[in-house]
Amino acid sequence: MVAPQDAGVSITVHLPVRLDEIDYLGIVHSSNYLKYMEHARVKLLEQQSVDLLAWVKKGIRAVVVNDTINYQHPARYGDVLAITCRVEEIVERAAKLGYSIMEQKTEREILQATTTVACIDPNGRPTSIPVEVNEALSLPV
Amino acid sequence: MVAPQDAGVSITVHLPVRLDEIDYLGIVHSSNYLKYMEHARVKLLEQQSVDLLAWVKKGIRAVVVNDTINYQHPARYGDVLAITCRVEEIVERAAKLGYSIMEQKTEREILQATTTVACIDPNGRPTSIPVEVNEALSLPV
Amino acid sequence: MVAPQDAGVSITVHLPVRLDEIDYLGIVHSSNYLKYMEHARVKLLEQQSVDLLAWVKKGIRAVVVNDTINYQHPARYGDVLAITCRVEEIVERAAKLGYSIMEQKTEREILQATTTVACIDPNGRPTSIPVEVNEALSLPV
Amino acid sequence: MVAPQDAGVSITVHLPVRLDEIDYLGIVHSSNYLKYMEHARVKLLEQQSVDLLAWVKKGIRAVVVNDTINYQHPARYGDVLAITCRVEEIVERAAKLGYSIMEQKTEREILQATTTVACIDPNGRPTSIPVEVNEALSLPV
Repeated sequence: MVAPQDAGVSITVHLPVRLDEIDYLGIVHSSNYLKYMEHARVKLLEQQSVDLLAWVKKGIRAVVVNDTINYQHPARYGDVLAITCRVEEIVERAAKLGYSIMEQKTEREILQATTTVACIDPNGRPTSIPVEVNEALSLPV
Repeated sequence: MVAPQDAGVSITVHLPVRLDEIDYLGIVHSSNYLKYMEHARVKLLEQQSVDLLAWVKKGIRAVVVNDTINYQHPARYGDVLAITCRVEEIVERAAKLGYSIMEQKTEREILQATTTVACIDPNGRPTSIPVEVNEALSLPV
Repeated sequence: MVAPQDAGVSITVHLPVRLDEIDYLGIVHSSNYLKYMEHARVKLLEQQSVDLLAWVKKGIRAVVVNDTINYQHPARYGDVLAITCRVEEIVERAAKLGYSIMEQKTEREILQATTTVACIDPNGRPTSIPVEVNEALSLPV
Repeated sequence: MVAPQDAGVSITVHLPVRLDEIDYLGIVHSSNYLKYMEHARVKLLEQQSVDLLAWVKKGIRAVVVNDTINYQHPARYGDVLAITCRVEEIVERAAKLGYSIMEQKTEREILQATTTVACIDPNGRPTSIPVEVNEALSLPV
């Protein structure tokens, strides 16, 4: 059950680059991009009415099993980032999210990335993505 | 019941400054000092056999109500920091911890700081510091 | 030359709490508040046409010499924070900024804080705050 | 000019997991692993007598073009991490570093990852890795 990228569920969120995110080279430290990506991912879930914290309370956790990031151009202080997250693929036990980050004003491409997420039960064992979550992520709003 | 500083409970832990902690000015970003201070504070609790996470599970949380930091000299990449945390005062409902951070090789003083901690119960209301914790922090090992 | 608080220069900026800023207790880790405060402080400078990075290139650096933070209520994931920064006092060699952080929807007070900033020259010695900066921060827009 | 993994240049550094690095799920937030990896990478350069900051001053910057991380098991508070970084491949314009992170006591495997680094000149254009750096990374100490 694959949701093709151009028909799929996606979101774009905007975040300003803060001064604390700038490193010794004068550019955004790479660790912050994972934070921006997670922010967009959680907002995508919220948009699709998936309450991540409610699932955590039930003992179902979504764990990241892979992050792959291709950096194009560094982001700098003063940039406003448009972070797009889309569902690239969702199967029984894993979902693959794709991201692109672009500087809003200049449309400079900052990076492209993917995250693969799987679910574990309260005993830490792999389990199916809950049917409601799978459906919420498979269908456009 | 005040534990005088020179007779009190204290610990010194060491941490290397990491490159990700350096900001756009080439010095440690101030937010990291709060992380170093917390690290020393938790290690002090462990040294005194106080298991913070066990208390959290019981519903007792220690919340920080004040941080005051006096910065002397910036820390830089390559520095190894000696972070000393000591119990400055402990009363029924609050504990005051003092810190000094020094660069290990040069003995350059980085900062002096205090944190005041109080306890809240599962309903978020102020409560006494558990007797065992109070005793563990009042007496030298 | 003191700018009284109610007549002074101030700004309010808004930031969403991100999931990465939540700690093991389910609340915003205190180190993030220093980041939010710096963000508001730099935006205040920009509003007053002070270009921090240009001053850095000239060799004049504003260094924080004190942070004092009084935490009222923890911020949580989903909160949008209204961070107000105002010039509380500015003299020849130091400026004192005051902050209050409030949750936007509930108007819950998160914290009140102050930062004292001083200027150092390229040799790391204390120097006067540049006259233009002093004037820009002393007068309401 | 490929340095085979088993004959190549490598380093293992150790870092304690700090409480501030723990997220809302009680595990290390993934953004921290990029910080640990960078720490090991820079220590590897230092071990090989490559002074990163000196190269930065000359205008040569090493920029990360790809990070790929395969997470195995989450790290937790109290863990001490053994972070191994090795040169996997080095050619004229790019170097590929491989990492494995293991919990020291339990030897639990936390993750495996790679970083691809390229060099840019003061104008931001791709340039060769300096010969001295290339040689320092190609030969075992």
